[in-house]
Amino acid sequence: MIKKIVIIGSGNVATRFALEFKKVNIKILQIISRNKNSGQNLAKKVQALFSTNFDDLIKSDLILICVNDDNIKLIVKKLPNLPMVHTSGNKSMSILDNRSNCGVIYPLQTLNKDDDVNFKTTPICIESNNSVFENDIFLLCRKISNKVCYLNSEKRKYLHLSAVIASNFSNFCYHIAKKQLDDKNIDFELIKPLILETANKIFYTQPESSQTGPAARGDKRVIKEHLEMLKDDNYKKIYKLLSESILKAYGK
Amino acid sequence: MIKKIVIIGSGNVATRFALEFKKVNIKILQIISRNKNSGQNLAKKVQALFSTNFDDLIKSDLILICVNDDNIKLIVKKLPNLPMVHTSGNKSMSILDNRSNCGVIYPLQTLNKDDDVNFKTTPICIESNNSVFENDIFLLCRKISNKVCYLNSEKRKYLHLSAVIASNFSNFCYHIAKKQLDDKNIDFELIKPLILETANKIFYTQPESSQTGPAARGDKRVIKEHLEMLKDDNYKKIYKLLSESILKAYGK
Repeated sequence: MIKKIVIIGSGNVATRFALEFKKVNIKILQIISRNKNSGQNLAKKVQALFSTNFDDLIKSDLILICVNDDNIKLIVKKLPNLPMVHTSGNKSMSILDNRSNCGVIYPLQTLNKDDDVNFKTTPICIESNNSVFENDIFLLCRKISNKVCYLNSEKRKYLHLSAVIASNFSNFCYHIAKKQLDDKNIDFELIKPLILETANKIFYTQPESSQTGPAARGDKRVIKEHLEMLKDDNYKKIYKLLSESILKAYGK
Repeated sequence: MIKKIVIIGSGNVATRFALEFKKVNIKILQIISRNKNSGQNLAKKVQALFSTNFDDLIKSDLILICVNDDNIKLIVKKLPNLPMVHTSGNKSMSILDNRSNCGVIYPLQTLNKDDDVNFKTTPICIESNNSVFENDIFLLCRKISNKVCYLNSEKRKYLHLSAVIASNFSNFCYHIAKKQLDDKNIDFELIKPLILETANKIFYTQPESSQTGPAARGDKRVIKEHLEMLKDDNYKKIYKLLSESILKAYGK
């Protein structure tokens, strides 16, 4: 059973995991991070030791690698053959060099250091190179989330792609919408219930059948008018491309 | 005070307004709709008379025009000089031909006949050509919503544009994301908490400061990989354009 972990990294993912695991009495022995400031900060929060140096690494039941995708490979090379997982959606498990016990725990949520998101409802996708270790990390993750599932590296890559489209691109749409309102001195508050309800709808209907708006109903007059209203060339392009795609998808 | 209304139309907006007003004891005298099926259906639900013919129009305190933008002008020509409002985000109040008492009540929400959305939190933007009538429609709308505000036709147009970008385009992103998951036999359920939390974030942070993902952090390797993973040319174009715009917006 995994009771004591070391976390590598001190960014958003490292912080949320550290705080969540601490809540369920998993001991965070140590934080290793090249960022002294945020690393020390996080270590203090979870009463862990802190180091910037991999030579100081303490033996634990699990090393949780929460660093940028591009740094995982380099860090793995510095680690002894201890049980380890990374937390990336995009990177394959194979990047862990087939250590005796290795795997992935990928939390599918938009995580931020300072936001106490509900982890119980956050899906965690796990993968491992052997079933005993898989069971260990399954039980560990079940302590903080009710939605732990198995997913292999290839499927996780597609899940990550979908997450980018559904979450990052939507957020950018909110950003563009807010700019239009700010420019005209209209309160962004007005549009918030609509944004929330649009997201909420996925729980009771399919996105393909709940598409509304000028493009879905083939209203080219409004599309043309909106394109004229948009001042920014990039936003114009986005409006045009998305509207054309919706027109096409709905046979208008 | 407005106590009795006639509704023209029997689509999503007409239906939601009819049901909401009925709940607060506003009498729906009559539904007039060219669609006999949905019109009769709605009339029955709210115990109103039904007709397809404007000659049958009954005198009321207010005519609520809930039809497609392109039909408003034609319908107004057929109406006597009674108090009337339309419900369009895009169309100016002037389309009502400056009748003695005319105005707009625009509900900013994604409305569907069959979904009992929370109207109390739905902003309703109103406008009128005189202050007495404006007060009448304000009081009427306050019965069903806690968020009634004044907004002129030009601002309403920009609000509508923003609504299309924030809601319709986001929903299309959910649609594209779901397609990728379906193709790989991955459960769409997995991504739902992420979608909801992304929307929820607008209530405690600004969308421009909560942008995450490969483009926001300038991770061009992942962007390239995702583009290769997308099979549909249109989706490729959308991913590319949005990522380039985010890269640019975040100086990456």
